[in-house]
Amino acid sequence: MKAGLKFAVIGAGSSYTPELIEGILQRQESLPVRELWLVDIPAGAKKLEIITGLTRRMAQAAGANLEIHATMDRPEAIRDADFVITQFRVGGLDAREKDERIPLKYGIIGQETTGPGGFCKAMRTIPVLMEICRDIEALSPNAWLINFTNPSGINTEAVLNYTKVRSIGLCNIPLCMKRDLARLLDVDPKRIDADFVGLNHMSFVPAVYLDGEDILPRVLELYRQDDPALHEKLEAISDIVWPDSFLDGMGMLTSPYHRYFYANRMMLEQEKADLAGPGCRAMQVRKVEHELFEIYADQAVHTKPKQLEQRGGACYSEAAISLIDAIYNDRKEVHTVNLKNRGAIADLDYDAVIEANALIGRRGAVPLTLGKMPRHVAGLIHAVKTYEQLTVQAAVERSYEGALMALMSSPFLDDFATAKAMLDEMIAAHPDYLGDLH
Amino acid sequence: MKAGLKFAVIGAGSSYTPELIEGILQRQESLPVRELWLVDIPAGAKKLEIITGLTRRMAQAAGANLEIHATMDRPEAIRDADFVITQFRVGGLDAREKDERIPLKYGIIGQETTGPGGFCKAMRTIPVLMEICRDIEALSPNAWLINFTNPSGINTEAVLNYTKVRSIGLCNIPLCMKRDLARLLDVDPKRIDADFVGLNHMSFVPAVYLDGEDILPRVLELYRQDDPALHEKLEAISDIVWPDSFLDGMGMLTSPYHRYFYANRMMLEQEKADLAGPGCRAMQVRKVEHELFEIYADQAVHTKPKQLEQRGGACYSEAAISLIDAIYNDRKEVHTVNLKNRGAIADLDYDAVIEANALIGRRGAVPLTLGKMPRHVAGLIHAVKTYEQLTVQAAVERSYEGALMALMSSPFLDDFATAKAMLDEMIAAHPDYLGDLH
Amino acid sequence: MKAGLKFAVIGAGSSYTPELIEGILQRQESLPVRELWLVDIPAGAKKLEIITGLTRRMAQAAGANLEIHATMDRPEAIRDADFVITQFRVGGLDAREKDERIPLKYGIIGQETTGPGGFCKAMRTIPVLMEICRDIEALSPNAWLINFTNPSGINTEAVLNYTKVRSIGLCNIPLCMKRDLARLLDVDPKRIDADFVGLNHMSFVPAVYLDGEDILPRVLELYRQDDPALHEKLEAISDIVWPDSFLDGMGMLTSPYHRYFYANRMMLEQEKADLAGPGCRAMQVRKVEHELFEIYADQAVHTKPKQLEQRGGACYSEAAISLIDAIYNDRKEVHTVNLKNRGAIADLDYDAVIEANALIGRRGAVPLTLGKMPRHVAGLIHAVKTYEQLTVQAAVERSYEGALMALMSSPFLDDFATAKAMLDEMIAAHPDYLGDLH
Amino acid sequence: MKAGLKFAVIGAGSSYTPELIEGILQRQESLPVRELWLVDIPAGAKKLEIITGLTRRMAQAAGANLEIHATMDRPEAIRDADFVITQFRVGGLDAREKDERIPLKYGIIGQETTGPGGFCKAMRTIPVLMEICRDIEALSPNAWLINFTNPSGINTEAVLNYTKVRSIGLCNIPLCMKRDLARLLDVDPKRIDADFVGLNHMSFVPAVYLDGEDILPRVLELYRQDDPALHEKLEAISDIVWPDSFLDGMGMLTSPYHRYFYANRMMLEQEKADLAGPGCRAMQVRKVEHELFEIYADQAVHTKPKQLEQRGGACYSEAAISLIDAIYNDRKEVHTVNLKNRGAIADLDYDAVIEANALIGRRGAVPLTLGKMPRHVAGLIHAVKTYEQLTVQAAVERSYEGALMALMSSPFLDDFATAKAMLDEMIAAHPDYLGDLH
Repeated sequence: MKAGLKFAVIGAGSSYTPELIEGILQRQESLPVRELWLVDIPAGAKKLEIITGLTRRMAQAAGANLEIHATMDRPEAIRDADFVITQFRVGGLDAREKDERIPLKYGIIGQETTGPGGFCKAMRTIPVLMEICRDIEALSPNAWLINFTNPSGINTEAVLNYTKVRSIGLCNIPLCMKRDLARLLDVDPKRIDADFVGLNHMSFVPAVYLDGEDILPRVLELYRQDDPALHEKLEAISDIVWPDSFLDGMGMLTSPYHRYFYANRMMLEQEKADLAGPGCRAMQVRKVEHELFEIYADQAVHTKPKQLEQRGGACYSEAAISLIDAIYNDRKEVHTVNLKNRGAIADLDYDAVIEANALIGRRGAVPLTLGKMPRHVAGLIHAVKTYEQLTVQAAVERSYEGALMALMSSPFLDDFATAKAMLDEMIAAHPDYLGDLH
Repeated sequence: MKAGLKFAVIGAGSSYTPELIEGILQRQESLPVRELWLVDIPAGAKKLEIITGLTRRMAQAAGANLEIHATMDRPEAIRDADFVITQFRVGGLDAREKDERIPLKYGIIGQETTGPGGFCKAMRTIPVLMEICRDIEALSPNAWLINFTNPSGINTEAVLNYTKVRSIGLCNIPLCMKRDLARLLDVDPKRIDADFVGLNHMSFVPAVYLDGEDILPRVLELYRQDDPALHEKLEAISDIVWPDSFLDGMGMLTSPYHRYFYANRMMLEQEKADLAGPGCRAMQVRKVEHELFEIYADQAVHTKPKQLEQRGGACYSEAAISLIDAIYNDRKEVHTVNLKNRGAIADLDYDAVIEANALIGRRGAVPLTLGKMPRHVAGLIHAVKTYEQLTVQAAVERSYEGALMALMSSPFLDDFATAKAMLDEMIAAHPDYLGDLH
Repeated sequence: MKAGLKFAVIGAGSSYTPELIEGILQRQESLPVRELWLVDIPAGAKKLEIITGLTRRMAQAAGANLEIHATMDRPEAIRDADFVITQFRVGGLDAREKDERIPLKYGIIGQETTGPGGFCKAMRTIPVLMEICRDIEALSPNAWLINFTNPSGINTEAVLNYTKVRSIGLCNIPLCMKRDLARLLDVDPKRIDADFVGLNHMSFVPAVYLDGEDILPRVLELYRQDDPALHEKLEAISDIVWPDSFLDGMGMLTSPYHRYFYANRMMLEQEKADLAGPGCRAMQVRKVEHELFEIYADQAVHTKPKQLEQRGGACYSEAAISLIDAIYNDRKEVHTVNLKNRGAIADLDYDAVIEANALIGRRGAVPLTLGKMPRHVAGLIHAVKTYEQLTVQAAVERSYEGALMALMSSPFLDDFATAKAMLDEMIAAHPDYLGDLH
Repeated sequence: MKAGLKFAVIGAGSSYTPELIEGILQRQESLPVRELWLVDIPAGAKKLEIITGLTRRMAQAAGANLEIHATMDRPEAIRDADFVITQFRVGGLDAREKDERIPLKYGIIGQETTGPGGFCKAMRTIPVLMEICRDIEALSPNAWLINFTNPSGINTEAVLNYTKVRSIGLCNIPLCMKRDLARLLDVDPKRIDADFVGLNHMSFVPAVYLDGEDILPRVLELYRQDDPALHEKLEAISDIVWPDSFLDGMGMLTSPYHRYFYANRMMLEQEKADLAGPGCRAMQVRKVEHELFEIYADQAVHTKPKQLEQRGGACYSEAAISLIDAIYNDRKEVHTVNLKNRGAIADLDYDAVIEANALIGRRGAVPLTLGKMPRHVAGLIHAVKTYEQLTVQAAVERSYEGALMALMSSPFLDDFATAKAMLDEMIAAHPDYLGDLH
């Protein structure tokens, strides 16, 4: 690998970008990024301009030896890149708002990664991701594609099964959970480890280690105390207060997204209340973003603004940049990433993309073997993975019938008429992105 | 195997019994039943008496050489039996009514095999089935247990994984579907075959054969015509009128019970309407049963009354007696039965009980290899099978926590609070049967 | 399927052909063959002429309504055929003699199906088989290819994994074994069944059924008696007299070819003695063939000569024609054939070709599920199957390196220098057939 | 884990023990061993005394805070131990000599780990290992058993499948190979990594990494040069000079023990020549041991003598002590060890013990996922693993028939009469150790 690295960030107009920049600048010594290509599309020109300005100011303040390019010429950015980071949102927050609103009309949770909303997002996103991968295959075949774009597990499923690109999918949840656990136990995060079994936004934690010893029972005990002071220490998993009988039966920690599967009625009511009140998540985020970009545009600002932390992307930068650092410097560290199963979960499809602990080094990510799934969650994991595989296939083939059966196979759907009506409304709502289904 | 056979029928007070008797009497030449033991419990004494009387009159009318015993001494009936037929209903129709009513309160379909109702029935039934199996292990270890008792797939899962009894699980749906198809195509049923992939009340039909040629496309075309005259010919599958897009996407025939998974909203409304109107299924059946037993008690009646056919058990007798005949006479015929997977479905748990075509002979049932599941239904089959395995384990271990997680893992549940409330109500409603969960 | 069938026999100049003809003529009523195309290559012109003459006389004597065509135009014969039967020998008996002689030089058994001889034969045969399959794909895509050509298991592995042709591989051993068992027990062969687990010339018999009851212990007891009168009744397995400790440990019957794996030293000595005495098998067969063709050429002969039975192909005709009859008439009978595994043996490669009992009908062959392999033979079956898959791949790709590693992976080889020397000698001995390896 | 550790070394009279002691003394800071229990049996009393003396002198010279106990009371040594290290040899070098001589009589390689010699050793060793494990289960259930005793893979298979003891099996070959590669490439060993696929003494190296980049092609190129100066740098793999065609076909590095499978004839000749000349390996080792113990007994010696390195156990100490250090200090380092598969090799038995890279920490060893085996070695790995599983089962059950079938299933055996004669001779030669087979 070259001494001077070229990074391409696709969807650089995102409000998260300063996170990433900060991460790059903090690791200048171990990670010699020399070229940073910030890529977006014309619709994002204004945001890209603001982000580029802030990036330049941050780089200068950090005394970094870094060429910064802002461009809409994606292939040029990808050519000979060492790392391509994807964090784009096809259709922007307007599309997200539809992902959140449409399912609710049918009495189904509206969410941009889990459920029909995530399905719709995947159907829009995968074609763009495929184009990016074709560019990488042609212009920088040895590049690593680090994918953040949601739904991250489904997108990585698409990249690893339909292209030749070397890619690792990322989500901030696992890292945030470990941070939360460290806070809960009042220990250095480095002393905490955890096993993750399952898929992105669908992974269970059957063991938590403090200095290598499994302390899950102690963690569950703390959860049980239902002490507000303790729960304040949790950020990613703060509002997950399960009854004792759930924790006893599960015998594992769950991800925040498991609430859609195990507390669906509560979540549905909450989403409806949000929509009637402060607005769905996209609407709230839109406001936050507006404020953030005002700050970013301020020529006096040359560090990552504090306010970004409220945006919800805690640990994003660290997850990504520490992963890239581990690859580049062959660190052989364990990170929790999305990658091909290949037997790591023995009773799940060999080629399926899973979220698991993996050893990271210059050769990429090698999953740690997990054995068989705990039976009480195996059915759900199978069902969700199958739904994801069908979604990816439909998105790649642009098949209407495939999309319909994929959506129908989601655990959130139990009614074909509803699935069809919802899909048809999604297509009508996104003519530019889903109009090509046939 | 002995020349003169001993049959024990457990739950002989059932209104279906005359079906079975008729089947036995029709096959006197090939199936030399010499002892028929009709077994029930004290609560069923009256019904057993009526059934025994009718059975004697039917046997006499048929000139059968058959000893008929009515007893409440189950071990005595099982001792040295060649075939034990189980068709009992723990808690009777009163319990069934609860299975149908309780889930509806929670906005979930109430049904005695699929969903929470079937779960509750399994939790009541499996302990009794285990006792019967212990008797068989001790008193007639070479006997065949032919299980009809619903939920048939779950019960067979329990028998084959928790006892040493040789057993085959039966359901009339596959045979009825083949009959319906023959009627639809106006051909002799013997010319019709079909593949079945999946589980009891959860099996899909990826191919229909007429004289060995796959005519599924032709069948789907007939379905599409939506011609009332055609649909009249269908009994088991008469009211399954899926939209074309569903049939196109599925590319398989479905079982009647798939409506709970793919047309849940319609089914839920229908159940609610039934309950508000003519009553839930248990209430309707109670009336039919009452009428049937009046007829059975009539000393002038010495054949199976026509009215029994309305009861819903079409093909039951034929399914059971033709299966027994195929075993006893080593016929090497293909029947659709419930049995251990052992790789027949390559990507499903090895020890899981599946519903599949199997070659039947004196050595029992050997499944025909099916390969991998079609992906668009694999997730659902995995999810349901996992739920079934968890239910069996909880029922055998009498575990409250296990039962809760089993119920939670059903595709019909997406909310832990709901699952817990429903389970607690079930336990309260069935103190004699579920009070021992701990 | 048409009422009048067209058969194409590739390698019709074989001395076995009259067997096949007799079979066809005996089943005229159920199997309406109207066109019989006898195909061979120029080198076999003389033999083809003799066989064609005999075939015409046999057909006439049987009063058959049958067009007989002799041709070297293989595509013409294949066009619109219903069944293509392959029984050719690339390189004839001269090549076979080399297959038997070359390995012996290296102290390894020389045999035309098992071991290096079979490897060499497969390397010669598969390219021709691929050409035939390309013809079938283009000219008669619905035809069934019934393959007899040895090594039958390896060749079927090639056809089913590298072409789209519908094919079933056949060997006479399983049928002969069942015949022998019937003779041993003095019962009608129809009452005998047996399970077969494994591969062609590598299948074990874990159960023998008489009227559906497992009588393997009784059979093993008879074997143990070592009574010449009993062993005379065995033809296929007559000379397999294993010590009691072998039978006890194995707990299964073995195939005649297992002697090469479990009594290798004896077999090697026997082959060496044969070569020094009456000649290797090819040399003996050559003499028999010469005599047979003299008889065939006799215009007075119009039935299958008795002498053919000594040739070693007992049951061949019955195996093939009864299989074709079962397909054509959708008989749903169990035959032992070579076909894709698809989970039938749960712990063997999904796509591997195995030899197993299968239900035969118009839709082809569906294997009966066998579960997991007995552990004490699993290693050998895995090793042989891997060797076969590597051989097929090398034969299709014409790879020298692939061929070398395939040969090296045979359980008969434990020395790379020996493998290389032997392969190089094979190539030198068969420049026309193996000269293209690269 | 306690701050002061207790180690028990079973078979401490071994000439290797000073290696281990040196390793312990070198890591005093990170590995606080406070009690060292040296255990042997009465037959080894003299050696144990000498070793204990040397150990005390070494500890004193190193200024170690270490209680040293020499005992024949194994349970006392095991009670509350943190680490139990097994390195015993049942029957000593006399038994080893028989392992090496007996197979040679039958024309089969005689070797104490691979082939019939290793089989015989396993049959003697496993019962003792089971006794040790029963002690650990009762007296120190949280102890780690680090097994060196050969055949290490088979013994670990026994421990992990027939006891509840937490155990990791060790061999020095993988570490030595990495050392050799570092020497060959003239780089720091820390920069070298390698993948290992397979079993102990049967693992292949499909990739070698220098700083995380796969440099296997470069290594194979160096091998090809056949330059004595290069080969001198290799110790563990020095004499493995394969022809280019082997390396091309294999596309992997092999273990030294693969010579028995891929260059059997050469190895057999070499063993015969050794026996006729300097003596078999046991005889040579006996001489070396004698000399070593003379040195060990010298009161002036208080460090590990240089001469021990010739004994053949290079890297043993480092393999063991660095592994223990990684466990105790939760280092999350990758070591190559023997452990349960659990899907790491996707197409090998789930419960099989394999040799693989694993992440080592306080929780033990978690294998890195390897995917499917390269097909050209899959058959051999399957065959050897099956043989090992059968051997373990026979050793645990003390079954003569099981032992016979296990031996027969070894890839080195192809003749039942030979297997039986050899087994009977082994039993006769080891009445005390194998006389209980029944």
